[in-house]
Amino acid sequence: MTDRTSPAERIIIGIDPGTNVMGYGILSVVGKKTTMIAMGVIKLSRFETHYLRLRRIFDGVQSLISQYLPDEMAIEAPFFGKNVQSMLKLGRAQGVAMAAALTRDIPITEYEPRKIKMAITGNGAASKEQVQEMLRRLLNIPKDRLLPELDATDALAAALCHFYETSRPNVAAGPKSWKEYIAKNPDRVK
Amino acid sequence: MTDRTSPAERIIIGIDPGTNVMGYGILSVVGKKTTMIAMGVIKLSRFETHYLRLRRIFDGVQSLISQYLPDEMAIEAPFFGKNVQSMLKLGRAQGVAMAAALTRDIPITEYEPRKIKMAITGNGAASKEQVQEMLRRLLNIPKDRLLPELDATDALAAALCHFYETSRPNVAAGPKSWKEYIAKNPDRVK
Repeated sequence: MTDRTSPAERIIIGIDPGTNVMGYGILSVVGKKTTMIAMGVIKLSRFETHYLRLRRIFDGVQSLISQYLPDEMAIEAPFFGKNVQSMLKLGRAQGVAMAAALTRDIPITEYEPRKIKMAITGNGAASKEQVQEMLRRLLNIPKDRLLPELDATDALAAALCHFYETSRPNVAAGPKSWKEYIAKNPDRVK
Repeated sequence: MTDRTSPAERIIIGIDPGTNVMGYGILSVVGKKTTMIAMGVIKLSRFETHYLRLRRIFDGVQSLISQYLPDEMAIEAPFFGKNVQSMLKLGRAQGVAMAAALTRDIPITEYEPRKIKMAITGNGAASKEQVQEMLRRLLNIPKDRLLPELDATDALAAALCHFYETSRPNVAAGPKSWKEYIAKNPDRVK
């Protein structure tokens, strides 16, 4: 904790790492109130080599961490892809973004794109535009702060999805079964 | 350059990143003389989560860099794999190892396993045992310094392959064609 954040504030950084563009979104949570602090993209296509791109991702994530001091990181991570070579490249981009968080001891949670879409829009097959529109309403984002790159709202959606997932009753404590849930929450089951 | 290395010494770190074991080998080159400085493995299977493993790879590679101050890194990197999920995981392990080198400004070169085997044994389909045996002879490694884990010699092989590749005439300068090679080396073509 630093003086910038009050003890009750929780900062979640959402990352959507890709090989051409990396999206990021910073979400503040105070109680049940969620606020978008920042979002944006890091464009990688202008870097000639794969290694310069990886370096840019690492430096970019580290500087976002220094700036916003997130408590947790949520990553949009597809588990399936078109072919092995694109998955290898995507894995590298993810690994580098993860390394930047791990070296600062920031816990990481991954979410499949489908899961994020479902959490935000109620539809696992929603378009990126639908995710953006829903996020805009949920977080009261002024229209002029939206970016043409949908990777930014995708990343912010990962952060909000993480908040929803971890603020459901007892998810953090991790009940493994319905039986365990009942045992832990006798008052919640009628 | 530090006081540990003479100006003529070139240190190459070879890395064979995997999701269960990461092999490494440190090669010293002085003129045409190559010497094994160290080799070993970092066992990852004892770490429960994928993230702890990635963290261990990052810390491990950074500490090897601090200890041996390599000038270059060579990575064994398969471009093809069994399935997209294993390639994603491998990509993450590679990305983390690369990030550790990139943050220290160490240039990285990747080599396919087949290319490394070819460079060391003359046979792209050689077994890991054959690679180890050939390395042992080429670098005069005492038998008692060989490890049961072949990932260590695989990594050292990547480093030696990188030395061979970069010490061929004008490879470093990078002639793009036979024509360019002739133009640059009139005395080498009779």
